[in-house]
Amino acid sequence: MIENLNNIDLNHRGIKLFPWPTEYDRSYRPLESASYWCPEIEKADKNTLDNIIFFKLKNIVSWAWEKSTFYKNKWKEAGVHPDILKDLSDFSKFPIVHKSDLRLSQEASPPFGDYLCVPEEEIARVHGTSGTTGKPTLFGIGRGDMERIAEAHARILWGAGLRPTDTVFIGSFFSLYWGSWGALVGCERLGAKVIPFGAGIPGQTAVAAKLIARVKPTCFYGTPSYAFRLAEVAKKEGFDPRRDFSFRIMFFSGEPGAGISSTKKQLENIFGAKVIDMGSTAEMTPWMTNAECEYRTGMHLWQDIVYTEVCDAKNFKPVPFGSEGTPVYTHLERTSQPMIRFVSGDLTVWTNEPCPCGRSYPRLPKGIYGRIDDMIIVRGVNLYPNAIEDILRSIPGVGNEYRVVVSKNGSMDELKLLVEHEGTSDFDVLVSLKNKIAEKIQIMAGLRPTVEIVEPNSLPRTEFKSKRVMDYRK
Amino acid sequence: MIENLNNIDLNHRGIKLFPWPTEYDRSYRPLESASYWCPEIEKADKNTLDNIIFFKLKNIVSWAWEKSTFYKNKWKEAGVHPDILKDLSDFSKFPIVHKSDLRLSQEASPPFGDYLCVPEEEIARVHGTSGTTGKPTLFGIGRGDMERIAEAHARILWGAGLRPTDTVFIGSFFSLYWGSWGALVGCERLGAKVIPFGAGIPGQTAVAAKLIARVKPTCFYGTPSYAFRLAEVAKKEGFDPRRDFSFRIMFFSGEPGAGISSTKKQLENIFGAKVIDMGSTAEMTPWMTNAECEYRTGMHLWQDIVYTEVCDAKNFKPVPFGSEGTPVYTHLERTSQPMIRFVSGDLTVWTNEPCPCGRSYPRLPKGIYGRIDDMIIVRGVNLYPNAIEDILRSIPGVGNEYRVVVSKNGSMDELKLLVEHEGTSDFDVLVSLKNKIAEKIQIMAGLRPTVEIVEPNSLPRTEFKSKRVMDYRK
Repeated sequence: MIENLNNIDLNHRGIKLFPWPTEYDRSYRPLESASYWCPEIEKADKNTLDNIIFFKLKNIVSWAWEKSTFYKNKWKEAGVHPDILKDLSDFSKFPIVHKSDLRLSQEASPPFGDYLCVPEEEIARVHGTSGTTGKPTLFGIGRGDMERIAEAHARILWGAGLRPTDTVFIGSFFSLYWGSWGALVGCERLGAKVIPFGAGIPGQTAVAAKLIARVKPTCFYGTPSYAFRLAEVAKKEGFDPRRDFSFRIMFFSGEPGAGISSTKKQLENIFGAKVIDMGSTAEMTPWMTNAECEYRTGMHLWQDIVYTEVCDAKNFKPVPFGSEGTPVYTHLERTSQPMIRFVSGDLTVWTNEPCPCGRSYPRLPKGIYGRIDDMIIVRGVNLYPNAIEDILRSIPGVGNEYRVVVSKNGSMDELKLLVEHEGTSDFDVLVSLKNKIAEKIQIMAGLRPTVEIVEPNSLPRTEFKSKRVMDYRK
Repeated sequence: MIENLNNIDLNHRGIKLFPWPTEYDRSYRPLESASYWCPEIEKADKNTLDNIIFFKLKNIVSWAWEKSTFYKNKWKEAGVHPDILKDLSDFSKFPIVHKSDLRLSQEASPPFGDYLCVPEEEIARVHGTSGTTGKPTLFGIGRGDMERIAEAHARILWGAGLRPTDTVFIGSFFSLYWGSWGALVGCERLGAKVIPFGAGIPGQTAVAAKLIARVKPTCFYGTPSYAFRLAEVAKKEGFDPRRDFSFRIMFFSGEPGAGISSTKKQLENIFGAKVIDMGSTAEMTPWMTNAECEYRTGMHLWQDIVYTEVCDAKNFKPVPFGSEGTPVYTHLERTSQPMIRFVSGDLTVWTNEPCPCGRSYPRLPKGIYGRIDDMIIVRGVNLYPNAIEDILRSIPGVGNEYRVVVSKNGSMDELKLLVEHEGTSDFDVLVSLKNKIAEKIQIMAGLRPTVEIVEPNSLPRTEFKSKRVMDYRK
């Protein structure tokens, strides 16, 4: 295995695969005109890519076995051992890690859990989940991880089309949430100028709009919800985002919106920019290795950094390309708190059909379109909120915000949509909009919802992640 | 001059003074037990320190002359030239820079002004003033500046007592405002763990309190207003900041509170930690070089990084030690937008009396206690808001928040104080509190205010900088 890797010379890219974990030379940067940060990896043939992945996988599995009682106990219990890994296909014999495992481990071994694989003094940064459903899960990020994540993000952002000449506006709040920090360190490593504006402080979105019109950043990072909010506030301040802003690339994470095809189109129309979907799941912090390239054919899985298997949601064995499953993620470079077969609970389909960019990584052509647990069952029909969003945003005349409300009327489930219109006062147009929405949802779901058309800006806004589904049945 | 400097060998500190700007080796760190980051500079005799300052000053003045029309024009107009600098004392012949000069320059040469001394592509980060009084002034921070500021802050934080074993909670928002970023890069360079929590998002202070009780950071950075707010919210959540938190050092900037002696005492009582005052003025971003050492005898002026003259507020010539004046700041290592004789408008007294720490830098023993323009004149009496705060926080029974309200009653000025009590329901205690406040203010100012005692938590709170004076006369 290691002999095979010796054929890959990455010295001129500043990359040393041996010894694990990979070492990177921070002074390396591709030519401005280059399409790839490291074509030898990104366009590698299957065998080479698999070899790189397997080499890193062997190492991180041994590392976790040696350094953490969490993995040692889990694997002993499952009857596996690092030595059984003879081939990539052996890996699916390893048990999966659930979010709840991490919570329990942090309860028992506070504050970072017994899956912390470095001494506490090696931790450079403490981040965490937002903790909306209880105590945040903490992420202790080692110094080495901080270096390596900058490299990973720079490579991925280069693939999205960012260049050192860009100025990037970061419009997502800087706190426990990692997304904005990841964008920052990636852009810094890539050599771009950064405006780390953040978001969420009351009244700051108008300041943001004025600043963007003045400094003319060329790239944007945030959540889709914040981008919609920014556009609305900008218009109120007298700006047209297409004319007065200068975004050419907008990259998103934190919410699935940028991967929903009609949401992507709507954002591209509003801002006149390429909309790039990125993301992963909080527990994979600080890595965010599902990311579209500038061709926007669905997020690539950057497998040599985080190894992702799309798996059956019951037995967690990888499903064939073309099938639906849930991503199961494995850090390949994270020494501090490696996640090894962490099940995200998201839903997606994967494919290995070629992308025009030429990268060898598999893709998620429909993005992340739901979660195992966010499916709503209404009168026996399975509905995914993102599928509803996709329909709504594809209908001309629909405004920026909506809500999905599920309730019970006696023993009967009721599905109601509150949908903002775009600002017409023509009654006939509104009636026809209402009917069109009901009809399109009925075609998709076989279920006709009640639709209420409401005034623009009448529904609450958020600057981070929107909660658009209300289920009042329980 | 340069020959003298050759006697200072800083190689073992990773510092190369030649060529300017200073180069730092990021792998250097003092022994954990060392009191100084670089004793050769911090404890230098006057002649050596002056030589270092003068060497850097010569260089930055020449740099600004060559690279910016702003300084060239300003200096030509004033009839000065870099060559007239034969000695440190010549420097006060150079004209001062006002905040309004920067605004005009950015209007005429958007967005960074014609005092930008590096090509735009060298800018790594864009920050700015909060823009509460109009358009923010933008700070373009060069890549080299980002490296050097990490060194400066690490050195200063070391002097405040921070060590690599510390975990630092940053409770000030991450946006255009630089303070929190400066704390972050300084702590990172010093090798401490950082929790970059931020502040200002509604509802997050309770999350912060729980997180602090759980992770037990040993250091805190934020504004005094936020520390008071955090203590209040923590108590509501059932925590006692002395018992359940573990802060040993709290360092502050953004507001002068930590330098007001009774505010400092109050914070030290609430948290059981050393309270360290730091600060400068937004335009000196990213440098924050007024900073106390752990002996807390007033902020040292770290003169070899930013050269500060305390000057007469009219003719801007340095005043003798022991006298009041306004700080006039000069960056010595900032290549991107150097401020050369920037007048802050703050008021302070400086001294060169020795500090127990042994550092040679002059100090501001009373901190920054006002601004030239925030003096309130009530019935002909000059009042500084910070002097009022100092009195209020020294009186037992006074709660956390207060307001100073000035108005007109016919032709007569009225001074009214709204002061929260600490939570007693004893009427006699409240009456005596009211009288004591009126009396102490009268002794200081020769003017008896109306005092209204109000309920705890009845006045609005902020998580950033408090506005406590309302003048309704105009």
